[in-house]
Amino acid sequence: MKVLCFAGSLRQGSYNKKYVRVAHKILQTFAGVESEYLDLLDYPLPVYNGDIESKEFPQAARQLAAKVKDCDAVVISSPENNGAMAAALKNTIDWMSRVPGEDPWPGKWILLLGASPGALGAVRGLWHTRVPFEALNAIVYPTMSGLPRAHEAFAADGALKDSGAHERLNTLIGKFVEQIRK
Amino acid sequence: MKVLCFAGSLRQGSYNKKYVRVAHKILQTFAGVESEYLDLLDYPLPVYNGDIESKEFPQAARQLAAKVKDCDAVVISSPENNGAMAAALKNTIDWMSRVPGEDPWPGKWILLLGASPGALGAVRGLWHTRVPFEALNAIVYPTMSGLPRAHEAFAADGALKDSGAHERLNTLIGKFVEQIRK
Amino acid sequence: MKVLCFAGSLRQGSYNKKYVRVAHKILQTFAGVESEYLDLLDYPLPVYNGDIESKEFPQAARQLAAKVKDCDAVVISSPENNGAMAAALKNTIDWMSRVPGEDPWPGKWILLLGASPGALGAVRGLWHTRVPFEALNAIVYPTMSGLPRAHEAFAADGALKDSGAHERLNTLIGKFVEQIRK
Amino acid sequence: MKVLCFAGSLRQGSYNKKYVRVAHKILQTFAGVESEYLDLLDYPLPVYNGDIESKEFPQAARQLAAKVKDCDAVVISSPENNGAMAAALKNTIDWMSRVPGEDPWPGKWILLLGASPGALGAVRGLWHTRVPFEALNAIVYPTMSGLPRAHEAFAADGALKDSGAHERLNTLIGKFVEQIRK
Repeated sequence: MKVLCFAGSLRQGSYNKKYVRVAHKILQTFAGVESEYLDLLDYPLPVYNGDIESKEFPQAARQLAAKVKDCDAVVISSPENNGAMAAALKNTIDWMSRVPGEDPWPGKWILLLGASPGALGAVRGLWHTRVPFEALNAIVYPTMSGLPRAHEAFAADGALKDSGAHERLNTLIGKFVEQIRK
Repeated sequence: MKVLCFAGSLRQGSYNKKYVRVAHKILQTFAGVESEYLDLLDYPLPVYNGDIESKEFPQAARQLAAKVKDCDAVVISSPENNGAMAAALKNTIDWMSRVPGEDPWPGKWILLLGASPGALGAVRGLWHTRVPFEALNAIVYPTMSGLPRAHEAFAADGALKDSGAHERLNTLIGKFVEQIRK
Repeated sequence: MKVLCFAGSLRQGSYNKKYVRVAHKILQTFAGVESEYLDLLDYPLPVYNGDIESKEFPQAARQLAAKVKDCDAVVISSPENNGAMAAALKNTIDWMSRVPGEDPWPGKWILLLGASPGALGAVRGLWHTRVPFEALNAIVYPTMSGLPRAHEAFAADGALKDSGAHERLNTLIGKFVEQIRK
Repeated sequence: MKVLCFAGSLRQGSYNKKYVRVAHKILQTFAGVESEYLDLLDYPLPVYNGDIESKEFPQAARQLAAKVKDCDAVVISSPENNGAMAAALKNTIDWMSRVPGEDPWPGKWILLLGASPGALGAVRGLWHTRVPFEALNAIVYPTMSGLPRAHEAFAADGALKDSGAHERLNTLIGKFVEQIRK
């Protein structure tokens, strides 16, 4: 089983990049699971514009669509901005949905995570984040995991300081993998 | 009363730019209403990234925030992409919400329009588009107007071919203006 | 200005009944505001069924619609059940929307509150609760107030134990009243 | 594979009962699929009230929870009321979620259908209908099927008049069954 992991944020020190890297490491502990982490910064996309689409379709969107097509599942950790989906993630999904001849999402499983310095852990935004993926016929796993107080959640080596939080994520990922294997 | 009109799309020939320009013209027929149309292409913004925010905050976001602050109401026509909010619009709102020392939305009235070549006129996406504006404490007018089959809706001079559709938009804008004046 | 207050819950000891009663008391301190509290238990409605609608339209729905029509604003505190709107509130709204010859919501202002024993204070459900009211053309105030840990929030006399929570609700209601008066 | 089919409407002549019965008949044509149709009218529930819950927990909720627990998948056709979820369906789900010692939804697959006399086929409401099921950890199939103009869609024997509409539902159910079997 191939899993792709990335964050819906571009910032270098993003808590969501840290959180999804923890998920990526957990995935690697499962026998038969091959996990790849990528950073959306390496797939630069302009803000979606139909004129750019006609003139010079961005190569990064093609590459991302090919990567999704090639995997069984995607784990995304994404911030909530203004109560809704992060612009960087929505922009990426919209570009990917326009790649000619590609329709990478149907049947792919998605696990949504979120990290935020606040008390709610981006969960409100994650409910909105489900929608475009479901509109594109991906199967979004019902349970989602929000990490609150993310600014103080990570040790210097990137691990979650709170072993309970680590264990909850480990259990969730275990259930997610088990569901896909069914 | 000052109203700002723009589309949530960047494409030059955007149906949403056409639709909001019709709204802009209708607004100018109301005594005491001053309407300004702007094109988001003239306010170029990178995809939101916290590192860009710290290093070189985009001037366009400051200018847009100042324009919103200076008006009473905003009319936005926005496409639906993958069942949800257009990335260009979400990106613009998120950047504006980060302008230091500015909080332009509280108490502003927003009228949401949408145009799409499909049968539903982008209405599904508009319900998601309400959320970040409401999270920022703007008052989104309950009624919204979706223009279906937008690819065949406009005459060469930009007017709506269907006088019924024009009249419905005229009535909606009349009610919107009346509500704000209360 | 006439305001109607009720909870979206039927339970006698409902935290939402307690919370909206606090709001009702605060409203009474504003000069020129007349507030009425009602309990949905006194307006019993069957689960919505189109056959009951045709045969014996429930009198309680007519009475509630008349009450809403007669006021300027409505303050509702409603629980979140399974991440979404409370069935009792949705049922009440749906019945009211079917009262022949009545359309009480257009132009009415609504303030949504929520109370829950959990940490999030029913806020997630409130975002769903906005939708049917907005579909019925009521103007839902953008800011909402969720009371977390509601099981330990109230003193024996019904007041909020935490003066900060009381003050925040007082400020919100002040802004709501001021907005309607504009 | 056991599938349970029901409508989120109580009305005897409900278009959603008709639509889900078509789905039920289609399901019976798949080898190895056992489908059961039930009518929520046979499982009468009061409007959810925590006091009724404590005093006399409704037997119908227990029976429905046991039925869901016993099956692999559920097909629900539900109307949209005021842009959101039908009260009868929300009430049923909320009662089922309170059955002591039962948690029937995790891992169950749900296919959501909708029928309405309007042009949109209840699709807007279905997006809200996903939420409580996903909050309860059911896996809601991403594709949904709305039947527009439902008042003229059915022949006297209950079949869909439009063979294209029948074929689309047949294809969707085929994909749904195939997904569950994976």
